Amino acid sequence: METRPILYIGNKNYSSWSLRAWLGLRVAGIDFEEKLIPLYSEEWHAKAEVVSPSKKVPALFDGRKTIWEALSILEYFADSRPDAMLWPLDLDVRAIARSVSLEMHGGFGAIRSNMPMNLRKTLPGRGRSEIVEKEIARICEIFKTCRTQFGQGGDFLFGHFSIADAMFAPVVTRFKTYDVSLDPIGNAYMETILGLPEMVEWYRDAMAEEWVVAGGELPDA
Amino acid sequence: METRPILYIGNKNYSSWSLRAWLGLRVAGIDFEEKLIPLYSEEWHAKAEVVSPSKKVPALFDGRKTIWEALSILEYFADSRPDAMLWPLDLDVRAIARSVSLEMHGGFGAIRSNMPMNLRKTLPGRGRSEIVEKEIARICEIFKTCRTQFGQGGDFLFGHFSIADAMFAPVVTRFKTYDVSLDPIGNAYMETILGLPEMVEWYRDAMAEEWVVAGGELPDA
Repeated sequence: METRPILYIGNKNYSSWSLRAWLGLRVAGIDFEEKLIPLYSEEWHAKAEVVSPSKKVPALFDGRKTIWEALSILEYFADSRPDAMLWPLDLDVRAIARSVSLEMHGGFGAIRSNMPMNLRKTLPGRGRSEIVEKEIARICEIFKTCRTQFGQGGDFLFGHFSIADAMFAPVVTRFKTYDVSLDPIGNAYMETILGLPEMVEWYRDAMAEEWVVAGGELPDA
Repeated sequence: METRPILYIGNKNYSSWSLRAWLGLRVAGIDFEEKLIPLYSEEWHAKAEVVSPSKKVPALFDGRKTIWEALSILEYFADSRPDAMLWPLDLDVRAIARSVSLEMHGGFGAIRSNMPMNLRKTLPGRGRSEIVEKEIARICEIFKTCRTQFGQGGDFLFGHFSIADAMFAPVVTRFKTYDVSLDPIGNAYMETILGLPEMVEWYRDAMAEEWVVAGGELPDA
């Protein structure tokens, strides 16, 4: 019998990287046990090093090894469970899907620092600056190009749900929190992501979490 | 006949992301044509948008599509040219190799901003701070863990040369430029990377480049 893998995550309200791994695995139908460790709590300081070599969540333990970094966790299941269809099958399309996923993984620093993920709040207009606007425009362009060229008339970036959608899900929540409106294609894409039953479940859990984190709320909370 | 792919890169002295893609493809024996566009030059401003959707190098054009982000370019060849052995074959080991590669892709921000890649210079001690020291310690731990647990007695992080080595090559050049000494395993690994014939070639080309970039040298040059 296979061991059920354990996915360690942070607070659902704040942890954008946790959301990426969790959403990707859930929508793909991968069975796992979820263990939430509140960020910066005593439990966090005691366990972070044990559950993840980088001391960051998400991390996945499958009974044999620990995998860290959201995209690495998702890539592992793309490799070991091809039936889950985590990437587009066509290698050319997959290359584009990886390019936008990696652009998200390492980029958009202004959005990430000025508009932190905070599902419970509504903060219209907060955090906008010239560089943030440029990054928003680039994300809008990514949504449009992918859906137009590779979306196959469906609701996702590359036809069916893929790792690329998981990677952009936190930015979609930011656009909701900070009330950022995109073009019609981008707005429709946001509705698709926010309407996924798994996203609705994640939001519901985030709303039910303790508000106070580590002796004080996180920045911008 | 296959079209020979074109890899667009920035200055060899400065462009750490270009080095990752270039080195990975070269060591793996992938044939490509290299086109260097000096960063922030007039040519850069005219061409960046054309050669790369993210306006960043490296970008690869294979006659049909453009792939951007160094790691995405390398993943594409790992998928389409399995004979190049760009990742470890074992899926468990590959997952660890991806985890460290992605930790590098999105992390180590203090090293990246305080100790920018600059092959021509020797700047001992420059850029060190408490957070930089912590990041250096983590990289040292990665080198040690990978070589000890997965190195198979060889000189690379995962037995044979892999994408993980390409991802860490720029940080190795930083440790040389800023005279950072690691533990014996880390120091031996640095020698391995710096001694690769392809790295020697890249350094030689960097030394021969124009010194002045875009009406002035880059920061810390």
